[in-house]
Amino acid sequence: MTSHLVTGIGELTTHDDRFGGPLLDAALVAQDGLVAWVGPAADAPAADTRTDLAGAAVVPGFVDSHTHLVFGGDRSAEFEARMAGTVYTGGGIATTVAATRASSDEVLRDRLAALVREARSQGTTTLEIKSGYGLDVENEVRLLRLAREVTPETTFLGAHVVPADVDRADYLALVTGPMLEACAPYARWADVFCEPASPLAFDGDEARAVLVAARAAGLGLRVHASQLAPGPGVHLAVELGAASVDHCTYLSNSDVAALAGSGTVATLLPGVEFSTRSPYPDARRIIEAGVEVALASDCNPGTCYSTSMPLMIALAVREMRMTVEEAVRAATLGGAHALRRDDVGHLRLGARADLAVLDAPSYRHLAYRPGVPIARALTL
Amino acid sequence: MTSHLVTGIGELTTHDDRFGGPLLDAALVAQDGLVAWVGPAADAPAADTRTDLAGAAVVPGFVDSHTHLVFGGDRSAEFEARMAGTVYTGGGIATTVAATRASSDEVLRDRLAALVREARSQGTTTLEIKSGYGLDVENEVRLLRLAREVTPETTFLGAHVVPADVDRADYLALVTGPMLEACAPYARWADVFCEPASPLAFDGDEARAVLVAARAAGLGLRVHASQLAPGPGVHLAVELGAASVDHCTYLSNSDVAALAGSGTVATLLPGVEFSTRSPYPDARRIIEAGVEVALASDCNPGTCYSTSMPLMIALAVREMRMTVEEAVRAATLGGAHALRRDDVGHLRLGARADLAVLDAPSYRHLAYRPGVPIARALTL
Ligand SMILES: [Zn+2]
Ligand SMILES: [Zn+2]
Repeated sequence: MTSHLVTGIGELTTHDDRFGGPLLDAALVAQDGLVAWVGPAADAPAADTRTDLAGAAVVPGFVDSHTHLVFGGDRSAEFEARMAGTVYTGGGIATTVAATRASSDEVLRDRLAALVREARSQGTTTLEIKSGYGLDVENEVRLLRLAREVTPETTFLGAHVVPADVDRADYLALVTGPMLEACAPYARWADVFCEPASPLAFDGDEARAVLVAARAAGLGLRVHASQLAPGPGVHLAVELGAASVDHCTYLSNSDVAALAGSGTVATLLPGVEFSTRSPYPDARRIIEAGVEVALASDCNPGTCYSTSMPLMIALAVREMRMTVEEAVRAATLGGAHALRRDDVGHLRLGARADLAVLDAPSYRHLAYRPGVPIARALTL
Repeated sequence: MTSHLVTGIGELTTHDDRFGGPLLDAALVAQDGLVAWVGPAADAPAADTRTDLAGAAVVPGFVDSHTHLVFGGDRSAEFEARMAGTVYTGGGIATTVAATRASSDEVLRDRLAALVREARSQGTTTLEIKSGYGLDVENEVRLLRLAREVTPETTFLGAHVVPADVDRADYLALVTGPMLEACAPYARWADVFCEPASPLAFDGDEARAVLVAARAAGLGLRVHASQLAPGPGVHLAVELGAASVDHCTYLSNSDVAALAGSGTVATLLPGVEFSTRSPYPDARRIIEAGVEVALASDCNPGTCYSTSMPLMIALAVREMRMTVEEAVRAATLGGAHALRRDDVGHLRLGARADLAVLDAPSYRHLAYRPGVPIARALTL
């Protein structure tokens, strides 16, 4: 039983409705890693140890509910070519699959550890990590085992794309059969890239088969959908009770209506639109329909190689017209709900004492100060 | 006479034409703070001390040739309102002027030091800093003295806006007379906000008066121009031999042609367009006309509160279609030329040994990894 008192919190965002907004000049006590007391600094109880933040703003640690952090290789040349508008025949995801398969556990583990450190250094305290660059039984298991070393929120994404040298029907049988069986022990979630517009991704019937099999194997469900064009993925996610449907760049009215009445979170990934120079999702339309929204990084070597949740907040405000408050909530509580977690993403009594400490007087600076590393994680 | 050997440079960008591009697996020797040798790691000479960068990419330290880092107060609420599209009557620059005048030297110096540290932590090794939040003789001198404590590149910007309670003609007489005289000893440069579209800024005739007086007082010239609408500022800058004309968001064909034949650098400030949700300058048109381009942050509390040169590079690539190479060159050599400095912005023999060390294998990662703090300054 160790208690920690954090004082000197200039502004504290808890998402606790008792307070009706951020607390000014606040303190927080953690007991055995959980929030045990929150209130005005003047009323703070005693504790075993004490940290003073000298006026810093604090928000709940960021919950990055969508990443692909286990991979080998480098695709900066592909990025450069895409930005210059030139045709690039380097192979996309297949490039990363080949490099990942050729990388030792040690190489993958070192990269993963560096990216996790980097995310924490910018305020992220909970990370979801997907497989999907192995695309055979041995390598998908390997990626999930490595991911499981750093987070419980691991996602089996064998259905990322159909590998170039494998028959489509055979691969679907593998992903819904032996690969799923081998991977399920290391995964909490399953995900599928449902995008009929992409010849390498999966259509609605294929995605349904993947998700139904995964659910039967005891996994929670997530879906990549409607990134490139409208498609069946959102309705499928809602129908099957997925925790989250991610991207949501092209939604029909019917998609939005289905999400609004559901327990499925719409996870927006504006770093992808930034790094692929694509149109952003219409966040206002989604929010105003009553849909719960999360923000995540989608950190991956192809379409967004950023771990920065503060950048995602700044982009959400600049490009998707979310208010700063909505964006911070989506990057914390929204991400937690997208992972069906009650213990993170807020600082109510009993929550994990995972903080993002800002070198700034207010949470507003997360959007007001783009690109500047003002956030860091503090886990008590 | 101390020499330092830096080894393990995975990729070294020098802007030295001898090499025709970045050197791989390189080393660098600094002698008394200047670059004394550059070449393949295998050929490196001995030196008194040695640092190994373990494969990191290195580029010249960033030259941020346009900032406003000496100010008091906070305008995050104004930022938030602008992003939400609501009318905000908080006062804009006048808010910062009032807060700055009310701040002690110690408060201003602490903020300034924190921002300079923050800029260095992201790879900036040369900073220009403007006055312009004092707007009376005493306070303009005070801001320049404080700026001079941290950089030789100080700019007198009494002609930022006309203060609310001062007659326009009287203020112009002050800025071109007693204020200039009092400030000139602490400034290398003078600048003017030439923007006839803004009632608080200065038209072409007024800007000319400011610049001619400053030149007569021995100051080099810079101009804020064509941020909000086309105007006379670019032609004026070229005619008077200004080192740089900054913003350049709205240029006529005649503006571009004038710049192309001149020694005036076009300094683009894409963080301003990001933070004000405005259209970006047409960098391709400017570059393809043969104009030299610099990238700078314009870090200021109103329209871009970011010190991050890596963000400016990422925005230049994403939003202005500059190649990563062009953007890195503009953020280093371009900035140096905008300050008429030969000793920074490159790593040729005899340059200052000011490096930006990247936690990445290539300079491309400055745009490929947006928002991630991969750069840090290293001054030998
Ligand atoms: Zn993804
Ligand atoms: Zn400026």
